[in-house]
Amino acid sequence: MKILDCTIRDGGYYTNWDFDQDIVKTYLESFNQLPVEYLEVGYRSQPMGEYLGEYFYCPVETLQRLKSISQKKLVIILNEKDVRAADAESLLSPITGLVTMVRMAIDPKNFKRALSLAAEVKRLGFEVAFNVMYMSTWADEKEFLELIPKVDEVADYFYMVDSFGGVYPQDVKDTIALVRSKTKVKLGFHGHNNLEMALANTLTAIHEGIDIVDATVTGMGRGAGNLKTELLLTVLNAKGLLDFPYNELSKTVDDFTKLQKHYEWGTNLPYMVSGANSLPQKQVMEWVSKRYYSFNSIIRALNNQSQGKVDN
Amino acid sequence: MKILDCTIRDGGYYTNWDFDQDIVKTYLESFNQLPVEYLEVGYRSQPMGEYLGEYFYCPVETLQRLKSISQKKLVIILNEKDVRAADAESLLSPITGLVTMVRMAIDPKNFKRALSLAAEVKRLGFEVAFNVMYMSTWADEKEFLELIPKVDEVADYFYMVDSFGGVYPQDVKDTIALVRSKTKVKLGFHGHNNLEMALANTLTAIHEGIDIVDATVTGMGRGAGNLKTELLLTVLNAKGLLDFPYNELSKTVDDFTKLQKHYEWGTNLPYMVSGANSLPQKQVMEWVSKRYYSFNSIIRALNNQSQGKVDN
Repeated sequence: MKILDCTIRDGGYYTNWDFDQDIVKTYLESFNQLPVEYLEVGYRSQPMGEYLGEYFYCPVETLQRLKSISQKKLVIILNEKDVRAADAESLLSPITGLVTMVRMAIDPKNFKRALSLAAEVKRLGFEVAFNVMYMSTWADEKEFLELIPKVDEVADYFYMVDSFGGVYPQDVKDTIALVRSKTKVKLGFHGHNNLEMALANTLTAIHEGIDIVDATVTGMGRGAGNLKTELLLTVLNAKGLLDFPYNELSKTVDDFTKLQKHYEWGTNLPYMVSGANSLPQKQVMEWVSKRYYSFNSIIRALNNQSQGKVDN
Repeated sequence: MKILDCTIRDGGYYTNWDFDQDIVKTYLESFNQLPVEYLEVGYRSQPMGEYLGEYFYCPVETLQRLKSISQKKLVIILNEKDVRAADAESLLSPITGLVTMVRMAIDPKNFKRALSLAAEVKRLGFEVAFNVMYMSTWADEKEFLELIPKVDEVADYFYMVDSFGGVYPQDVKDTIALVRSKTKVKLGFHGHNNLEMALANTLTAIHEGIDIVDATVTGMGRGAGNLKTELLLTVLNAKGLLDFPYNELSKTVDDFTKLQKHYEWGTNLPYMVSGANSLPQKQVMEWVSKRYYSFNSIIRALNNQSQGKVDN
């Protein structure tokens, strides 16, 4: 079982993908000593119509700097909705040799289109991972389910993403069984922490023989955030499954703990309500981050959504 | 299945058992609208050699004030190690009619002595709950295991406490089966959140048919804290098991969220290490709260403890 840390990529939702160079350097140096296989450091993207920071584009110079410090396999992710197969070569050929794996964030409704993009990424020589969102809805996505066997030809990993942060261990088991009935590709799990179930769900996935799991330092990531890397490593260490120098881990945890006090990611009542009721957390994050809505008014709006009412 | 909220009692470890009257009033008024059966509001204690606040003693006037606001069953807890059976009448007879249930925090090594205290508490007319610590060690406590059947005569609830915050769902199942093989008393579970497993463990306990579970608002409680009341209620609400006005819940959650930013309870790397390795969190809390130890030095000390070395 491998671990992928995606702190910089997913944490960028809070910092608009800008990070202090010293924090990134300490992060990379710490992880050189930790039993983690892959580091996902950002997106590669076409120019967007708004300001987005360094790790939303990961220019070649940035990746060269990271690669000069890190001994780990570097990963970037593409937002499938914004990238067509025809764009792959211009986005990715400049980073050959710097990046080992390319992930794609995929809405299952666009799965067919994603398969074409994946074929192109594979042709360019990268390991390919599918990050397929909304795992709690898959059982109803007939067209997507029929297409899953096609990943055998183009993907190295097929990730199940708990986008709403609302799944439980039994859902993880059921979804693994569902996907395994369709493909032999290696499986991954990316858990969100709205209900503080990220560890329980990830341990379930590991127990079911999953091949790779995601985590981020201090859980930094969009909305309520992710499984905490330091929690996963500590638990697996106590179970005797891996070992590492705690001093190295705590250096980078210290840095991100300070950032957390500023940006305040992590779960809270609005994220719990959105997770438990499978509501998208993008909007909740906007409300919570703006800080001029009370929990009260956010909860009222979410409650109306979960009951299908219009906000007042 | 019933819920007991012990925010004021367990949160007192951070405030030295002093709470602003307005916060307590909002808390009690909010809970009047929530599907929670019991509120544990503090300790009853003999005078101690250091300053300890209002809710460490719960004087009669305090309980009268709470009772005039709350429609819930009030609970106090006794530290069994500090209270003998002979003290029970002087400590408890003044609060008859104000408090419904008396809990006792019990080290399994003192279980025989606790049975005498419980008999006395029962004689005074209270519901009696055993809060038995260190559930992860019980399987090795032969004398304690032999005494468990005696609780049938004196206790209304027998709580399993995950003192180190290090148990997993399978441990919860195993411990419930162990206790059920010894007694027919109603069972309770008090989960700590060092490994963010409090919800997963509590849901497992509920699935196994447990009779009562503990939680605190925002998880406020000693060390890494507890299962969050708002999380438990939100999850059970989404599962269709109970209903309540979210506005009432969010009023008291708002108050304790502000307190949390000051006192900073919740898990972090040192608490994760202590939980995963079954080390007492009292000392970790002292180190973390003093803030002049780095995570680095705390982790080093904990790591030495878990390997049986002496601190340097």
